[in-house]
Amino acid sequence: MSTNLVAPASTLDQPALSVDAARLLDRVERFAEIGRNDAGGIDREGFSDADIEARAELVREAEAAGLTARIDAAGNVIVRRPERAGCTERPTLMIGSHLDTVVNGGRLDGTYGVLAALEVLQTVSEAGVEPAHELVAVAFANEEGARFAQPFWGSKVLVGRLAELPDEPLAHDGSPLREPLARLGGDLDALDSAVWPQGSVAAYLELHVEQGPVLERSGDRIGVVTGITGRTVLTVTVRGEAGHAGTTPMELRCDPLTGAARILLAVEGLAKEQQLCRVATVGRLDIRPNSPNTIAQEVQLTVDLRDGNPVRLGLAEQAVRNLLDTVAQERGLEIEVAVSTRTEPAQADRVLRDAIADSSAELGHPYQLLPSGAGHDAQVMAGIAPIGMIFVPSIGGVSHVPEEDTAQSDLVAGADVLLRTALRL
Amino acid sequence: MSTNLVAPASTLDQPALSVDAARLLDRVERFAEIGRNDAGGIDREGFSDADIEARAELVREAEAAGLTARIDAAGNVIVRRPERAGCTERPTLMIGSHLDTVVNGGRLDGTYGVLAALEVLQTVSEAGVEPAHELVAVAFANEEGARFAQPFWGSKVLVGRLAELPDEPLAHDGSPLREPLARLGGDLDALDSAVWPQGSVAAYLELHVEQGPVLERSGDRIGVVTGITGRTVLTVTVRGEAGHAGTTPMELRCDPLTGAARILLAVEGLAKEQQLCRVATVGRLDIRPNSPNTIAQEVQLTVDLRDGNPVRLGLAEQAVRNLLDTVAQERGLEIEVAVSTRTEPAQADRVLRDAIADSSAELGHPYQLLPSGAGHDAQVMAGIAPIGMIFVPSIGGVSHVPEEDTAQSDLVAGADVLLRTALRL
Repeated sequence: MSTNLVAPASTLDQPALSVDAARLLDRVERFAEIGRNDAGGIDREGFSDADIEARAELVREAEAAGLTARIDAAGNVIVRRPERAGCTERPTLMIGSHLDTVVNGGRLDGTYGVLAALEVLQTVSEAGVEPAHELVAVAFANEEGARFAQPFWGSKVLVGRLAELPDEPLAHDGSPLREPLARLGGDLDALDSAVWPQGSVAAYLELHVEQGPVLERSGDRIGVVTGITGRTVLTVTVRGEAGHAGTTPMELRCDPLTGAARILLAVEGLAKEQQLCRVATVGRLDIRPNSPNTIAQEVQLTVDLRDGNPVRLGLAEQAVRNLLDTVAQERGLEIEVAVSTRTEPAQADRVLRDAIADSSAELGHPYQLLPSGAGHDAQVMAGIAPIGMIFVPSIGGVSHVPEEDTAQSDLVAGADVLLRTALRL
Repeated sequence: MSTNLVAPASTLDQPALSVDAARLLDRVERFAEIGRNDAGGIDREGFSDADIEARAELVREAEAAGLTARIDAAGNVIVRRPERAGCTERPTLMIGSHLDTVVNGGRLDGTYGVLAALEVLQTVSEAGVEPAHELVAVAFANEEGARFAQPFWGSKVLVGRLAELPDEPLAHDGSPLREPLARLGGDLDALDSAVWPQGSVAAYLELHVEQGPVLERSGDRIGVVTGITGRTVLTVTVRGEAGHAGTTPMELRCDPLTGAARILLAVEGLAKEQQLCRVATVGRLDIRPNSPNTIAQEVQLTVDLRDGNPVRLGLAEQAVRNLLDTVAQERGLEIEVAVSTRTEPAQADRVLRDAIADSSAELGHPYQLLPSGAGHDAQVMAGIAPIGMIFVPSIGGVSHVPEEDTAQSDLVAGADVLLRTALRL
């Protein structure tokens, strides 16, 4: 029930449809039980037993709703409306997200977008509406890469980025993907069959929880995503000289941990004061030997830089590299740097952005434009289609934790905006 | 063989004795085999099987050398010359150190001082010399506290600090001390019997590897210890707000890790630039959740402050507390601080210092005065007797690692200075 549907959509050709709020929220609850752990979080890493169960459950739900569902060679679940006269000639509007979680993750990241896509197809199907596009819902496989070290696995296969993927993908523990993929109904030797060529998707829409605090702080119910941030992660190794904390005079020290502290503060300042890029974070620091009594020998840290503009991202990376040179010289440390992740930014399509904004306005939901700071399958889909993303607020701005949550009215509002956007295109 | 004995000690009443270099070095090698691990380090934590074996071996060596040895209720090995006419009337000069190591420690820390003390007694005994003091060698139990969480166990019992010790001491893994202590020949219920009252020890001498780089850098062969550093260890907990590294804007962050970085640099500056205390170190940092993709929620770190002057040590601690208040305010963090260790400095006795310096000079060994930055049983012994300590250089300044080493000629020189000092008092 969308309590915020204040006015019928008089400007649309389609009748004023809204999703079945109770059905959507019930499915969100039921899927949250699949892989639930004792801590209240969800352990549903890609291709785990829980993930396979969730994907099979999605197929059952879709079929019970009178839709068709198949699992492609990559393990993506593809849901369509049954064949009807003329349906194959329409351009495809794909709507999706993912069902897998991080370890001890939340119940909304990904799953909400998949279930909302199902809800949109079911609502449209039950109403007998024929939008301008053929709607296809997709649950991509292994977006998070929590167990198998290939995040965006399903969307990368779908857009044909097969060359980037290993021939025999492995989990972090070394176990092969081949067997769980086959158990789910996929086929590692037939990935080609899962590729959608350039031009075959007219547009891609993804509804997702924000995973940040911006909408909650502003009070807006809908976020119209302007683009998905680019990300460069540098792994920095700082080597000094270990020593006894009591016996090594200050002037004879070569302490990599105070050197790392200098780097941390400068990386923060690079985004906060200098505003060279949108955000810059050091979240991980590994110290050897990490003993109260010992000056460290080596510190490894990750520098995570994000920005929607690839030029700014490149300049920020260069600023970090210059900083590392300065700290190495000033403190007599040996510093190495390696790029561990480099993701190009993806822009949201302006037509889709406008469609989302207009749909929000018509439904009476305050919205704002904002970038996506996290990665999503949409950024991969941007390789073959225009993309649009819709965000709903995250309570407390948190995600990837059991506490991840969104108000029920916001979940329903997001699904209604998705539905309305799909119908108006 | 002491190649550096350039001149006979014409100023001493005693004949110009020197230790048996080959015998000392051979014992050092043989004791290094007890508890040796595959990495080449020594696992001989206090009251481990290897430690018990080393203590039994010391008893056998002493008895084979014609000395008497007993194990007191605390597990200390006490070595004496056999009873002779008049020997009980002389004041006691105790010489010792410890046989236990840290996990994967070196072969010299502690063990060198014990074996040198045995060598001094054996040399004096074989020469039939009767110094002014009755010489007693001691191998204290569990100086390091590596397995059982009571460092300085043996020396604390010997000086009568029983009230500080738990009734049933436990290892870090929860296993009780009672059984291995009994197996070694000690008795947890009879610790009183191991106490040496105030006045019963005329002086205490300890020979030790420096465990720092000062002597190696200066080229001096002998360090005359001026005092043992006081130490205050603060455990600091910095709490902020966890968040997604991509979705949390810089201005909405409350990052405890950049707060910790600020603390680290200021703690370094407190000793290095402001010189409020001799050394200040953060060597350990525990970060939760410590993920590249997540702004940390909580960081715990240790601040290790050391100085020979208790007033300066107190001022440095206050400076750290002020700093923590400032960082908490500036960055909206919650910071807690607890004192996890507080050790008072101990001064070396001036007469003993002079005796060590004069002995070094007479033997032609360059020496320098320096503080001990590490803790030693001597600081506990200072509670009942004047203390003196002798250092020899540590190669590379390292200790508590398998690479811990000292040139053979320096090991022999240190033992000769110890012998000469013991004879001249």
